[in-house]
Amino acid sequence: MKLYGYWRSTTSYRVRIALNLKGIGYEPLSVNLVAGEQSGDAYTRVNPGRGVPALELDDGRVLTQSMAILDWLEEVYPDPPLLPADPVDRARVRAAALGIATDIHPVNNLRVVGKLKSLGHDQDTATAWMNDWMTRGFTAFQSLIRPETPFCFGDTPGLADLCLIPQLYNAHRWGCDLAPFTRLTEIEARCLALPAFAEARPEAQPDAT
Amino acid sequence: MKLYGYWRSTTSYRVRIALNLKGIGYEPLSVNLVAGEQSGDAYTRVNPGRGVPALELDDGRVLTQSMAILDWLEEVYPDPPLLPADPVDRARVRAAALGIATDIHPVNNLRVVGKLKSLGHDQDTATAWMNDWMTRGFTAFQSLIRPETPFCFGDTPGLADLCLIPQLYNAHRWGCDLAPFTRLTEIEARCLALPAFAEARPEAQPDAT
Repeated sequence: MKLYGYWRSTTSYRVRIALNLKGIGYEPLSVNLVAGEQSGDAYTRVNPGRGVPALELDDGRVLTQSMAILDWLEEVYPDPPLLPADPVDRARVRAAALGIATDIHPVNNLRVVGKLKSLGHDQDTATAWMNDWMTRGFTAFQSLIRPETPFCFGDTPGLADLCLIPQLYNAHRWGCDLAPFTRLTEIEARCLALPAFAEARPEAQPDAT
Repeated sequence: MKLYGYWRSTTSYRVRIALNLKGIGYEPLSVNLVAGEQSGDAYTRVNPGRGVPALELDDGRVLTQSMAILDWLEEVYPDPPLLPADPVDRARVRAAALGIATDIHPVNNLRVVGKLKSLGHDQDTATAWMNDWMTRGFTAFQSLIRPETPFCFGDTPGLADLCLIPQLYNAHRWGCDLAPFTRLTEIEARCLALPAFAEARPEAQPDAT
């Protein structure tokens, strides 16, 4: 498999963690979002939606949207599982993960920050914008996960953890106050001690600058 | 089951369609987002995440996040299916649906528009903001679905259709130019001719004003 991604893209980071957790080897291919490569002819042939990540299967078919890729991985490579077996438990893990995927990341990504700047706002306003959504989103996330398990929902990391850790990377990057979220930073420390997470970190990617 | 929602909430609209398609009866309960009821004590006890929809099961357990609720419905009430059987086909339907759920809706919802206004922008700027994300998102969506089927991916409506139709409702509401998206408006006409969609329309809800 080939994974088109970008080192700092939190959605690419999610999929890297999942591939590592499931022990699936892949070839990383960099799409430089800052240079606009996602809108170039070469990449729009891979993904007309112009986003990363995209996962190219060995038969050439391409999957897009990180949350859809994660569901595909879970269906085709079920072991180790990213979701519990009970439907209501699954829905709760998905809800926490989707809180990050729909309520935090989309309002904070490069496209949105670029648009804020095109409306005349400076970096300080953009940073405050990002941190506000993260604070609201982490507050909701912390109320949705289990209160005392080593990872968000149990003894092993799963879908909620692999969405949380990349978003915390962004939180550190933009100086978000994480003091109210010790439950989350404790989970972060436990996750980053695992090779599957450590090797997926942005700084560990070949295109990191 | 009880569905907490709001007539104009597109995420509530998605779940109403799915419940109707699967023939599941439910009691609709209104959470007035414009009046801020989602942040009141009564509702935050139901959903600390303060969003709609929330689905309360007969045993009192509550599911949140529309895309997680839809996955739960599909797992527990598989007939008729909202997703195809093949994993890659499923991933493609999910990717199109998630394009709306992550790339359009979150940057256009009431919270974000409210924040734009708090930064000093007027309704015209907010409307242009919303229409820009819809135009980009519909362009991507139209490239991801199948070109000639009656519905987005086949002969029956599924997950992509039930995300599309509520977003088109918003597009009409905000005057988004849909001329480039005749494939989508043709699908919309076919969907709205079905009772499952027609009865889920915002205007058909008891809390519509």
